Amino acid sequence: MNVPLFERAAILGFGLIGSSLARALSENGLVGEIVCGDASQVACDAVIELGLASRATTDLADAVHDADLVVFAVPVGAYAAVGHAIAHNLKAGAIVTDVGSVKESVVQSLQPLLPDYVQLVPGHPLAGTENSGPRSGFAGLFSGRWCVLTPVPGTDPAAIARIRALWEACGSKVEEMDPAHHDRTLAITSHLPHLIAYTIVHTATELEQDMQAEVIKFSASGFRDFTRLAASDPVMWRDIFLSNREGVLEMLQRFTEDLTNLQKAIRRGDGDILHETFTRTRAVRRGIIDARQAEPEALKTGAPRAAS
Amino acid sequence: MNVPLFERAAILGFGLIGSSLARALSENGLVGEIVCGDASQVACDAVIELGLASRATTDLADAVHDADLVVFAVPVGAYAAVGHAIAHNLKAGAIVTDVGSVKESVVQSLQPLLPDYVQLVPGHPLAGTENSGPRSGFAGLFSGRWCVLTPVPGTDPAAIARIRALWEACGSKVEEMDPAHHDRTLAITSHLPHLIAYTIVHTATELEQDMQAEVIKFSASGFRDFTRLAASDPVMWRDIFLSNREGVLEMLQRFTEDLTNLQKAIRRGDGDILHETFTRTRAVRRGIIDARQAEPEALKTGAPRAAS
Repeated sequence: MNVPLFERAAILGFGLIGSSLARALSENGLVGEIVCGDASQVACDAVIELGLASRATTDLADAVHDADLVVFAVPVGAYAAVGHAIAHNLKAGAIVTDVGSVKESVVQSLQPLLPDYVQLVPGHPLAGTENSGPRSGFAGLFSGRWCVLTPVPGTDPAAIARIRALWEACGSKVEEMDPAHHDRTLAITSHLPHLIAYTIVHTATELEQDMQAEVIKFSASGFRDFTRLAASDPVMWRDIFLSNREGVLEMLQRFTEDLTNLQKAIRRGDGDILHETFTRTRAVRRGIIDARQAEPEALKTGAPRAAS
Repeated sequence: MNVPLFERAAILGFGLIGSSLARALSENGLVGEIVCGDASQVACDAVIELGLASRATTDLADAVHDADLVVFAVPVGAYAAVGHAIAHNLKAGAIVTDVGSVKESVVQSLQPLLPDYVQLVPGHPLAGTENSGPRSGFAGLFSGRWCVLTPVPGTDPAAIARIRALWEACGSKVEEMDPAHHDRTLAITSHLPHLIAYTIVHTATELEQDMQAEVIKFSASGFRDFTRLAASDPVMWRDIFLSNREGVLEMLQRFTEDLTNLQKAIRRGDGDILHETFTRTRAVRRGIIDARQAEPEALKTGAPRAAS
């Protein structure tokens, strides 16, 4: 058992990430007490039933009372409203952090709402699955995964160090980054892949009825990977795309230009362009395997997990 | 040990699929003898070293001599040339089959070349990995996977039955289908997903140098699934897109229209359209899980495999 890093942690939002974090904090003895704040009474009841917090309330201001750690784990579109609701009740010296998939707009919307006697250390654990809700979480979700912190200049280094220590104790690798750079990087590694996956699965749902049954039947031939991404939480992803609009639109435009080039090559029967492109992309996979982000097929012991 | 279904099988092309089939046929005692025909002497040497065939030759006409089963396992773009090379040396009563990912153009290019004393039973095992070459194959590749047969009207039912029996003995589930319908189905379940994956990975390679390193570093957040598909064999996939041009272009057009709609919604900040679309796609994943094509995250014991 570790010495607790925080006496009382208030986690706001007990979805997949919030409930996984609660489990990880408990199992690793990182906090003295966990309080759940969630707008859904059903979620609060589940949290108590599962023993994930000592107290659960739909009153978020009440949840943060006397907490020295406050974690925003609600969809990023709800940050401003939640910030307004809790700001007056934050304890002096408390550290506020979050787990949102977009950072620049989050910092901009949250920072002005917070009193100057608390420290904001925005964070983003790159971990997730296609499942949602307090029952879907598990303590090992963050193990071996990256967590990116995007503190603004002027943040107390001691606060950053405590949040870093918290994620490292949950098994994560921690990296600090500028919020705008984070958003652009995630636009290509996560947000665009999810948007594309949502799109192609949507395209399939608009096919004739008999074709839809076959799409499901033969999904293992490539389509299935996309359906896993496209089963991710709709509210969370709506908010991500609206909050990282610039980053996503830039990467989308680049993608569309490249897709149009390949489309032209197919239409014209230009095999050389296709072959050249497909040969280059193979090297990227090699780079990922070398970086130990992925394992060769034969060594895989589990499916890759979605992340946001 | 089964009674052999065929005395002598000639497999033309010892890549991932050809070499996996050779292993599956041997392990299950389905053929008396396997002869390898491969244009690459390096591949032939590997085949002999690995014990995958009793004989290996770069002379494909010689390879099919006296074979009562001939399997085309070369890229579909090479079918016409290989068909020309071997047709005169086919044994009367031989069954010719293939493993190509496109069926209509294949039937059209191959059928006219074959003498009327052989039977053509086109097939497509929906199985694969990102790896290529004779060393990448394994006997279990087809186990539990679909194999689609697309025989033309007038084919001897006994020949179809023997090819069906062969795939079933390799562990596959077999389905018969019209060639054009196969191509349209695979365009959405396999060909378009691969094209999109190739494109987004290509898009990433055109980003600034420092961003590329981060794409690899943070690939686990969605992008990694795409890199696996985009590492598939370049020649094989070039030929698939050129051979199934109509099917791929149709699905690509539908996809582009849907992507444009979501792009507009993001630009305009229209969260309702995003939320509605993302909610619908979740149901497709549910359908696939119900169809036992995919398992819930927690139950997965291995990564989904690419297929063509």
